[in-house]
This record gives sequence, structure tokens and C-alpha cells, in this order.
Amino acid sequence: MDQNYTTVEGAVVGVLMGSASDWPTMSKTSETLDKLGIAHECNVISAHRNPERVTAYCRDTEQRGVKVLICAAGGAAHLAGVVAALTPLPVLACPMKAWSLEGLDSLLSMAQMPKGIPVATFAIGSAGAINAALFAVSMLALNDDAVKARYAKFREDQSAEVQQLPR
Amino acid sequence: MDQNYTTVEGAVVGVLMGSASDWPTMSKTSETLDKLGIAHECNVISAHRNPERVTAYCRDTEQRGVKVLICAAGGAAHLAGVVAALTPLPVLACPMKAWSLEGLDSLLSMAQMPKGIPVATFAIGSAGAINAALFAVSMLALNDDAVKARYAKFREDQSAEVQQLPR
Amino acid sequence: MDQNYTTVEGAVVGVLMGSASDWPTMSKTSETLDKLGIAHECNVISAHRNPERVTAYCRDTEQRGVKVLICAAGGAAHLAGVVAALTPLPVLACPMKAWSLEGLDSLLSMAQMPKGIPVATFAIGSAGAINAALFAVSMLALNDDAVKARYAKFREDQSAEVQQLPR
Amino acid sequence: MDQNYTTVEGAVVGVLMGSASDWPTMSKTSETLDKLGIAHECNVISAHRNPERVTAYCRDTEQRGVKVLICAAGGAAHLAGVVAALTPLPVLACPMKAWSLEGLDSLLSMAQMPKGIPVATFAIGSAGAINAALFAVSMLALNDDAVKARYAKFREDQSAEVQQLPR
Amino acid sequence: MDQNYTTVEGAVVGVLMGSASDWPTMSKTSETLDKLGIAHECNVISAHRNPERVTAYCRDTEQRGVKVLICAAGGAAHLAGVVAALTPLPVLACPMKAWSLEGLDSLLSMAQMPKGIPVATFAIGSAGAINAALFAVSMLALNDDAVKARYAKFREDQSAEVQQLPR
Amino acid sequence: MDQNYTTVEGAVVGVLMGSASDWPTMSKTSETLDKLGIAHECNVISAHRNPERVTAYCRDTEQRGVKVLICAAGGAAHLAGVVAALTPLPVLACPMKAWSLEGLDSLLSMAQMPKGIPVATFAIGSAGAINAALFAVSMLALNDDAVKARYAKFREDQSAEVQQLPR
Amino acid sequence: MDQNYTTVEGAVVGVLMGSASDWPTMSKTSETLDKLGIAHECNVISAHRNPERVTAYCRDTEQRGVKVLICAAGGAAHLAGVVAALTPLPVLACPMKAWSLEGLDSLLSMAQMPKGIPVATFAIGSAGAINAALFAVSMLALNDDAVKARYAKFREDQSAEVQQLPR
Amino acid sequence: MDQNYTTVEGAVVGVLMGSASDWPTMSKTSETLDKLGIAHECNVISAHRNPERVTAYCRDTEQRGVKVLICAAGGAAHLAGVVAALTPLPVLACPMKAWSLEGLDSLLSMAQMPKGIPVATFAIGSAGAINAALFAVSMLALNDDAVKARYAKFREDQSAEVQQLPR
Repeated sequence: MDQNYTTVEGAVVGVLMGSASDWPTMSKTSETLDKLGIAHECNVISAHRNPERVTAYCRDTEQRGVKVLICAAGGAAHLAGVVAALTPLPVLACPMKAWSLEGLDSLLSMAQMPKGIPVATFAIGSAGAINAALFAVSMLALNDDAVKARYAKFREDQSAEVQQLPR
Repeated sequence: MDQNYTTVEGAVVGVLMGSASDWPTMSKTSETLDKLGIAHECNVISAHRNPERVTAYCRDTEQRGVKVLICAAGGAAHLAGVVAALTPLPVLACPMKAWSLEGLDSLLSMAQMPKGIPVATFAIGSAGAINAALFAVSMLALNDDAVKARYAKFREDQSAEVQQLPR
Repeated sequence: MDQNYTTVEGAVVGVLMGSASDWPTMSKTSETLDKLGIAHECNVISAHRNPERVTAYCRDTEQRGVKVLICAAGGAAHLAGVVAALTPLPVLACPMKAWSLEGLDSLLSMAQMPKGIPVATFAIGSAGAINAALFAVSMLALNDDAVKARYAKFREDQSAEVQQLPR
Repeated sequence: MDQNYTTVEGAVVGVLMGSASDWPTMSKTSETLDKLGIAHECNVISAHRNPERVTAYCRDTEQRGVKVLICAAGGAAHLAGVVAALTPLPVLACPMKAWSLEGLDSLLSMAQMPKGIPVATFAIGSAGAINAALFAVSMLALNDDAVKARYAKFREDQSAEVQQLPR
Repeated sequence: MDQNYTTVEGAVVGVLMGSASDWPTMSKTSETLDKLGIAHECNVISAHRNPERVTAYCRDTEQRGVKVLICAAGGAAHLAGVVAALTPLPVLACPMKAWSLEGLDSLLSMAQMPKGIPVATFAIGSAGAINAALFAVSMLALNDDAVKARYAKFREDQSAEVQQLPR
Repeated sequence: MDQNYTTVEGAVVGVLMGSASDWPTMSKTSETLDKLGIAHECNVISAHRNPERVTAYCRDTEQRGVKVLICAAGGAAHLAGVVAALTPLPVLACPMKAWSLEGLDSLLSMAQMPKGIPVATFAIGSAGAINAALFAVSMLALNDDAVKARYAKFREDQSAEVQQLPR
Repeated sequence: MDQNYTTVEGAVVGVLMGSASDWPTMSKTSETLDKLGIAHECNVISAHRNPERVTAYCRDTEQRGVKVLICAAGGAAHLAGVVAALTPLPVLACPMKAWSLEGLDSLLSMAQMPKGIPVATFAIGSAGAINAALFAVSMLALNDDAVKARYAKFREDQSAEVQQLPR
Repeated sequence: MDQNYTTVEGAVVGVLMGSASDWPTMSKTSETLDKLGIAHECNVISAHRNPERVTAYCRDTEQRGVKVLICAAGGAAHLAGVVAALTPLPVLACPMKAWSLEGLDSLLSMAQMPKGIPVATFAIGSAGAINAALFAVSMLALNDDAVKARYAKFREDQSAEVQQLPR
């Protein structure tokens, strides 16, 4: 079994990317999870180039207590679907703007999953990277009052914020 | 306050549609939730025509113990985003194939949410209607062993199924 | 009630943006209104992050004599639809070219409004930002002869203009 | 001058279509205007096949007291832009789903007007046909208390409506 | 291991579909292979619902002498990419026109494979189903003179064909 | 009548642009016509901002012996259709890549002309700008042996050209 | 040489189709040419399946006095480009709505020709089929006064036509 | 016959480009073939500008022992289809991101080939350029154990690779 991936003790969210080039975008997922106090681990594992590593990681996560998986990929973005086929955990998908078509290819490759295996899709690029983290938090908040309080505070602050125009 | 909506005691999932014309599709969400033993309630509330009812419903749900909201709409599909702005509960979005553009308009109106308020989007039409239900189940399974067992059984059966070709 | 917004005495047009990043584009709306002598006010209020502020602003405007609202947003651009649901005033929508898809997502999120609540949509980016202002002027001109004269002059000058080629 | 068009005494809205085949859709504009008590006139005039008739009609309308023009066309839908170039009146555009591309061609041919001449665009097909009428009403309501009251009543009724699901 | 699939002794082409609903289209692949005398086997195996069956099938095929795999799927069509990740055999992909977007989602989910694992994509629907079969034949013809002769004859006949117009 | 445009004695091709910003692209039309010895004139006239000038120009051209009109515009590109409605001369359309959507809006606004008034559309941007010139040449060559010979030479040279790779 | 095609003595327009299934659409090209008294010939020749026949036909036409070629094809529609590469005659392209994507694939395969070999593209489907015929007429009218008179009459009649609404 | 192209003795893959501007992308095809030890030759031949050279090259290749052709083109990308019509060899198509539409035009011009003449399409840009080379290798590996071993090694190394994140 190919277990060349990094684990973080106590991680409740696992972030996977199809390529290291997704990191500038997906680092925002990680920062958002950090900001809301969610232990997590990040790995680059390609559904296409490392299929055995994906399988090993998916089996492993459930046992280690990971509760949500966030998968980012570009182009024909199969990672989230492949992961969702291998684990009953909720899988969140972040379409990346890769080499062409402005990320529409990734969005459709994730959002248009056929019935039977669900994948929850977010916006192309960093908006989605941040929102996938927030959605994971909203899920965890259902059964964790500390997380719930932190998320309530985050949203309250966000709502109170006033953006000034330069004139 | 406009409280013209139906509540179901013990419902953990609330299904909202922007129009009664979404029901032929969204009845599959309801059937899927039934099949997996998830108490839920279904309502037609438009983000545009019934903004006060949406607000009332969102406030109400959290108090009544609803844990997930599934929102379906077509065209410029704002319902999921409006609901997500009003409640910290996880919001799942089902784009409907409405009067043109094969549902691409609804998909983009849901999936492309700006950062800050997350919405989890599923496939256009009935594939997404079924998968949103399954995703809700996967979330609820995280903290309910009975649901977890039923979901595991559902997936096992689905994996074991063999589709025959007619020749 | 969240009333963290700026009001301008005598404003007949209210310009709203979902994000301060829309200002480089929407400042052209403001400049165009200035050029045609239309008192107006500009605010950044997100339909998603500041839903209560949107509600407060909409209620407030009609009473203060604002006659037209111009709403700009990017991605899943719900602001115009949300505002139109809350006020009977005419709402003009400016789709922004945000983080991907060249603004097609914003255009569809605005133009494809379901029947019942109207939103008037203009071009993506600054062409639309300028035209929304001109359209507001054309509306106000219906009942204000001074505005009508200024608009007639603006169009006459524009028609008379001759663009030279560099050769 | 080619004056082969129908005028209605006291009409405040002029509805133009590029082809009689747009009538099944645009009859909903007419019905909506009727429902809200707005006198109007409907004509089929093509920007391409009847350019002189368009010019004559545009000059004529302003003098006769028409205040808003609603233009419907399919494919490379130039009618609204051509009309807006010829009259300072507010021009509303209804993209038709014509012979292919689900109306996306018409939507872009209307919404993407370059700066200088504004056209307000609504949804493809009957949703837009109805909303263009409602938008015209919202404009007329600014200076007509009877229209304002009828529009307020229309929206109130619409908001109060409850759509039942068949189960 | 889940080995619920059908094998055909001597098959050199394996045809896989994500759903039995792809058969009306993919039966044309089978007919074309029959017409050119290529032994093949057809199975419905979903990348998402039957991931273990896909793995088992891929391992099995190379040993049994299958030389080309043709994979059909609709929506977020991952089957071809998943298969290509599991086997070094050439993988041909047939995008299906599924429940919306006219098959564009399937086409992009197949054609836009990231570098490293190749998948050869053909046209949406039956044109692609037939051409994938012909392409497989052209590959097999490189090392089989009988196939080469049959393919040359097929193309010659096709070139000689004259389509008459009804007048 | 607004006759603020430039005429060139003996011009057989008239090139029109909706905006001076189209010149960097359309100068290639002019250069191509020069290279093939075709007298022509170039003007910036907007279908929307200068409708009377367009009308005056169209009437004028036929009398002066212009035989082909080439029209360039971006966004909702109506110029070619408006010109074709005003003159029986052949009209060639060059879609410009304007402020968004990569020129798809212009392409559809030109190519999708409804039946009755023809417009011949070429590629977005400079490829189309050059090809529209070449197409005009091919038309003029039908009745001018000198042009025919120059065009034959141009194509021969082009066919004979060998592009070397840098290795 | 493969000369399996039909010639019509005195034909000045040659209509080519990639498939007999294009005839229901392209018969409108033929009817329009008939209506305007233009001798023409129609053939089904595929750029892909009958490359030698295309070559033979192109060489032949110029000698026989054909002046314009109209090429219809669907999907990856190469016929017009291939013909334009083989003949200096003006080539008009009619994109067909084939098996998916509403004809967008055909439109782009024709309109987006790279610089050097021009192809004039018309609308998808029967609107384009009719307009290509009219455009051919407008070209022929440049040097044939009888055609010019018939075309002027056709346009005059078309402009004079009044379309009545059913109410 | 126009034989202005470069041949490489022993080449089993022929790489063709429609323009020298495709080389920065297609040089990755060449590098990938080099890396896997596949003798090949690269030429710029346009389907449109050099139709005779294409014909000559296609006839020549089969005799010289070339087994696979890889064709790259942008815009209305006809090269692969034209080549496939002229040779029974397997033809792989690489859509280029040319002057607009992000390469969607090229992708559709290649992938949507009508039935009868197959073309195998890969991703837009360099992902496809690399994968077309790998796919050619996978085909050649079917009958060449040395290639098979090198390809197995390449894929093994690729699977074993671990991409580190910068934190």
C-alpha cells in the first residue's frame, strides 16, 4: 500500500489536492480552518497518477477520526468523485482554474456527479476554497458547541464589517 | 411575520423549493430521505416573491432542531444563497433545469457564491436532487450510528448491484 | 437594525455593491450620474454577508425619496434580486467580472430572474456600469424636464462625436 | 415613411417584436400590462427587414406620449439596441429562445450593449416577458399613484400566495 | 474482489459503461466492432458506485489479452480517467449526452485530463461511440494484417458511397 | 444628414468600426487590402451612438461604387446587421474581442442573424480581420482579372511557404 | 478521380452538404436560390469520408463557371474550410445543428478559421441556410443587373411586409 | 507534389502543427516522446494553407513506417480531421489555445468529428500535448516490449512521486 502522505494527529478535516500547483489557492482553505480552530491535514495526491495512494488515504482517514474531506483539482477534476466513491465521509469539492476554460471544466467535472455518490461543490478558485472550509465548519458545528460558537462569532463579525469606498 | 409554511415534528432536514414546478425533481430528494429514514419537511418558498417567509422559516428551523437545509431553484437561483445568509446551518443547493440554458444559469447562480457564506452545490436536476439527500445523510451519519449503518447498507447494496445489458 | 450605510440628502439613485472590489468599475456609474447632474449615494453592502443591512437600506430608501437602485455584484450575484424582492423601486443590475468565467456567472445570476420580481440587467463590467447610470437618467427624464434636457444634450453630443483613426 | 404599424390611443408602453413567432411569449407581456391596467400597443417590426418602419415608429412614439418601449427578438437580437439608438425613452429588452443555443445568443446580443446607449435586459423567454412588463410598471409607478397602488397590491398578493405540494 | 462482470474469451476490446442507460448509444460501438470482426466484451461498471469492480476489471483485462478499453459515461464522467489510472492499456472515452448541458459536461470531464495519464476522447453520443470503435480498429490494424485489410475495405466502401438527395 | 465620415475616391471596400479601439485589429484588414491592391476607406461609426451617420454612409456608398462593406464591432455587435438592413451590398462582419466573454458575444451577435438579411461572419479578432479582407478580394476577383491574378499569386505564395521549427 | 457528383449546366452556385441529413435544412438554400432565379447544383460530399470527391469537385467547379460555393456541415464541421483550401472561389458556410451542443460546435468549426483562407459563416440551421443563399445573390448582383433587380425587389417586398398579431 | 517537410528515418510518430506558434506547446509532445525513446518527426503543415503538402505527407508516412500521427491546431482546427480522412493510421488531436475562446473552439473542432473517420482528442494546451505523446506510447507498447517496459517504468515513477507542500 502506498502511504506516502502526511497525517496530523487529531485532524478532523483532510484537504487533498491533485497537484502542488493548487496550493496557492487551497492554502486559503487551510488558513480559514486555522482561523476557526479546526485541526486538519493537507496532501497532494492525484486521482490519476496516485490511485493507490488515494485508496490508502481514504481507508485510513475514517479510522483516524477525520470527518470531512475537501478535494481540489483542475481540468477533468476527478479527485472528489474518486474519493467519494471510496469513503462514506462527506466530500467537498473545490474546482481549480487550471490551464484553460476558466475552471468551467473543473466545475462541471465536480458538480455534475451522477446520482448515487454525492459530492458537494463550491466556487471555482479561492472563493470556493474559503467557502469549502466554512462549510466544513458549519457541519462540525452541528455537534460541537465550541466550533458552533466560533463560527457564530466569525459570521457576526463578518456581518458587522463595513467596507468603505475611497471617496 | 409570514409563517405560511409546513413544519414536520422532528424533521432534521428542511427542503425548500423556489417554485412548485420544482417538485417533480425534488420529490426524489424526499424519496431518498424517506428511504434512508430521515425525517424531513418540504416547502415551496421563493426567495424573490416571499422574502419574509424565507426569513421566518430560517429563524424557525434552527430552533426546531432542523440540521440541514436543501434549497432548489431555477434560473437566477438565489434561494440557497439567501437562506445561507440567514442561517448558520449547512445549506445544500440543487440547481433546476428551468426555462432555458439547460440549468447552467442555476448551477452558476449557486456554485459561484462569493467567499464568506458557503453553499454546497449538487448536479442539475434529479441527479443532484438525489445526491443532496445522500450528502445530508452522510453529514448526519457523522453523529448518528443508526443513520451511519443505514447509509453504509445503502452504499453496499448500490456497489453490489449489477446492471445487465439487454443482449 | 444594521444601518451602517451612507446616505446622501436628496439622492434619487442608490448605488449598491457587493464588494469594495467592485468600486473601480462602479465608480463609472457614479461619474456618469455626476456628469448628468443626478444626486446619488454609493454603498458596499453584501446580500450574503450583510442581509440585515440590505433589508434596512431597502426600507429606508423609498422613504427618503430614492427612486432607482443600481446593484453590482460578481460570481453568484444575488444582490439585485434580493433588493428587488424587498422594494418596489426599479432595480438595475450590473454584472461584475469577478474571479472567473469572464462575468458570465454574474450576468446569468442577474438576467435570468424568474417571473414575478423584475431586475433590469446591463452589460458585464464598465460598459454596463455606465449604461445603468444612463438608463436611470432616461427613467428620471420621463418626469423631470431639466434631466430630460441634459440627457438630450448628452446624447446629441455623443452622436456628433467623430472618432479619428490614427492614419 | 413606412408607417405600417398599429397605434393605441393613450398607450404608455410600446411592445415591439422582431417576428410574429415571438407573440406566444410576448403575449404574456401584454397580459401582465393588462392585469396592471397599463395601456399599451403591440407591433411586429423587424430591425433588419423593416428598418424604416422602426425609425418611423420610434420618432412617433415619443410625440404620442409612449413612455417605455419593450423590444423582443431572437438570434442576433438587434431590435432593442436599434430602437435605443433612435429614441431617448427607456428601452427594455426581452431575449427570445429562437432556433438554437437556447436563447443565449439573444441574451448576449441585448445585455452586452457597449457604453453610451443603454438597454435594460430581462430573462430569456416568458419569465423575461412578464418581468419586463412588471419593470415598466415599477417605472410608471414612480409618478403615478394609481399605478403604484396597483403594483403594491400585485406584489402583496404575490407575496401572500402559498404554493402547495401534491402530497 | 468484486468480479461481477462478463468476460468474452479472446476479446481484444473491452467496452465499459457507467450506466445501462448508455447502452442505446454504446451498442453502436459494439455493432461497429462486430462489423469489423473485432472480438469484444461489454459491461456496465460505474466508477463511482462500483470502484472495486472497476479495479478488478482493469487488473484482469491486461492478463486476458484485452488490448484497448472504451469507456462511456455521462455528467461528471470519471470512468475513463479512473480506468486509465489503473491500466497502461490505451483508454478511449465516449462522452454521453446525459441529463443536461447536451453532453458538454461529459466531454470536458474526459477531454481535459491533466498531464500524466492519457485518455483519448471522441464525440458526444453515437458519432463518438462509432468512431471510438473505428479508432480501436485502426490501432489493432497496425499489427494485424487481416484487421488492416478489413479496415481498408470499410474505408474504401465508405469513400465510394454516394448519398442521393430526394429531388 | 450626418456625413462626418471619410471617403476615398475609387474605394471598392468600405471598412466600418464601432469604436476606434477596434483599429489595432482592423488595421490588419486595411493592410491586407493594401497588400492585394484594393482601394478602400476606413471609418469609425457606431450603430448605436451614430445611427444617422450609419444611414447616410450606407446610402452614399452604393452610389460611389463601393462594392463590399466590412463591419467590426464588439459586445452586442449590431453594426453589421444594421448596415445590412440599409444596403443591398454584401456585408462582412468581424467580431471583436471586447471587454469580456472573449468575443463570443460579438460572434453570436453577428453570426446568428435571423433569416432575410444576410451578414457573412468571420473569426473573432485579427484572424477574422484578415480573412474578411481576403474574402472581399475573392469576391472582387470574380469580375476583375487583375485582382484574380493577385489573389492567385497571394494564395500560391502562401501555400509554398514553409514554417521552420526552432530545432 | 472520384467524380460521383451531380452537375447542373450553367450553375453559378454549388451547394455542398456533409451528410444527406443536412438536406431538410439546406433545401431552404436551394428554394431561396430558385426564388431569386439563380442556377445551382446540390451535392452531398463529406470532407472526411470523400476527400477525393471534394478535391475533384473543387477543381471542376471553377472551370464550369460556378462562382460561389455554399458548404453545410454539422459537429466538427470541416467541409467549408477544406473546400476553401482547394479553391479561390468565395466559400459560404452553414453550420448545422447536429447531434448535440445546439450547433455551437459547427459554428465555431466554421467561423473561427485561422488567417489565410477565408470562409464566410452564417447562422446555425435554416436562418443561415436562407441567408447564405441571399448573400450569394448579393454577390452575384454586383455584376448582374437582372439579379440585382430581382434582389432589390425581394428586399423591397420583404420590407413592405406587415406581420399581424392574432388579436 | 509539395514535399516541403522534414522526415526522420525510423520515425514511428509524426507530429504535425497548423502553425509554428503551436511549437512552444507541441515541443512538450516531442520532449515526452524523446523521454520514452520514441523516434519521431515534427512539421508545420497547415490544412488550409498547404493542402497539397498535407496530402503528400499523409501518403508518404504510411510507406515510411510511421504508425501514429499527432496533429495540433487552433481555432477552427481542421488538421486532424483532414489528416484522418487521408490515412488509415491512428490520428491523435491536440487542441491549441489560440486567439480567443480559451481553446474551446479547437476542442470542439476536433472532438466532435462526425461518424466514419475517427480522431482521438486530448486536452487543450500542454496537458494534451504531453498526454497525446503518452497515448501514442501506450499504443506502441502493445507490440513492442521495450516500449512497454519504458512506459511501465515511467508510470511507476510517476505514481511513486510525492509532491510536497511548502509548509
